[in-house]
Amino acid sequence: MIQEGVQCPDQPVLRLDLALVHYPVCNKHGETIGSAVTNLDLHDIARAGRTFGIDTLYIVTPFADQQAMVRDILDHWQTGHGATYNPKRKDALSLVRICQDLAELYALVEEKWQRRPTILATSAKPNANQLGYAQARQRILAGEPHLILFGTGWGMTPEVLADVDGLLPPIIGYGGYNHLSVRSAAAIVLDRVLGKS
Amino acid sequence: MIQEGVQCPDQPVLRLDLALVHYPVCNKHGETIGSAVTNLDLHDIARAGRTFGIDTLYIVTPFADQQAMVRDILDHWQTGHGATYNPKRKDALSLVRICQDLAELYALVEEKWQRRPTILATSAKPNANQLGYAQARQRILAGEPHLILFGTGWGMTPEVLADVDGLLPPIIGYGGYNHLSVRSAAAIVLDRVLGKS
Repeated sequence: MIQEGVQCPDQPVLRLDLALVHYPVCNKHGETIGSAVTNLDLHDIARAGRTFGIDTLYIVTPFADQQAMVRDILDHWQTGHGATYNPKRKDALSLVRICQDLAELYALVEEKWQRRPTILATSAKPNANQLGYAQARQRILAGEPHLILFGTGWGMTPEVLADVDGLLPPIIGYGGYNHLSVRSAAAIVLDRVLGKS
Repeated sequence: MIQEGVQCPDQPVLRLDLALVHYPVCNKHGETIGSAVTNLDLHDIARAGRTFGIDTLYIVTPFADQQAMVRDILDHWQTGHGATYNPKRKDALSLVRICQDLAELYALVEEKWQRRPTILATSAKPNANQLGYAQARQRILAGEPHLILFGTGWGMTPEVLADVDGLLPPIIGYGGYNHLSVRSAAAIVLDRVLGKS
């Protein structure tokens, strides 16, 4: 399927996708694991994505039971009781798609935009291959296709991070602590690249 | 207890508190209700608060069972198994205090800072009494005591919003949707007033 991008009145065409990666990620000991999908990650990141104007939120997990759980959540809010109880959730969760692995994800977005998007990752650690938020914002608002990866657990493996086009800088404040939830990190990154203040 | 403010090397003295209000808030029909405390609200907002350098996250609820649940969560992560399993959570959740109602909250922060802080609220709707993020940021970084209220459910009642010193503007993007989770909204507000990009 070829996609034109997200366009509404008085806004630029946007071609931004997010992916929430559950495999391969690290556990607290730095070992490669697959993490479990968290219900509120889907809701919070889909709602933030819908607020800021992304095209799709991809949930990356190779585990059949986890994929089934995501489908159950989506069904509840899109065609089940949730759809009438809270249509705003239906609207937000319509952005969610399930993906088997990163290879499938990269192929899907390349097909959709008819070229390989710039693939950015987020990490709580500083990295040499950084792309600043202002520069990412400028390119995204210019309509260039971008895919931003968010890791669950203790973050994506070094191999995944080494394979992307750039890393967005860690989010820091005055507290000397950088252990945000992925839900909070995704909200802040979206606001930095697409927020209207 | 008189508080001096949060100061670490190479940072300004900060006197910012957040409060997550569970009563009085609106339900989807605009009726005044008390909402239930959500476990992940505590974790996510405490972690964001610790990242950006707030003093305290007050959980406002008059319900004894809800207060007991908050104490159970805090005990698990501060002295129970959670404290050794993940010390970063212990650190973040050390910012949390329980409050009976807004009157108690306002008295506590006034006593703590030895003057009434500027009380700001967040709302998904535009309001005449708005204070921009840049101005709030300037005042907070100058060390002026501020308290920012976040509503749960469908937001704080009009009476609460009419009684604060100012409202922070709604968070919007290009998606034409403004139904962020309170966890996402708190993360973005903190980044706007205290983030180092």
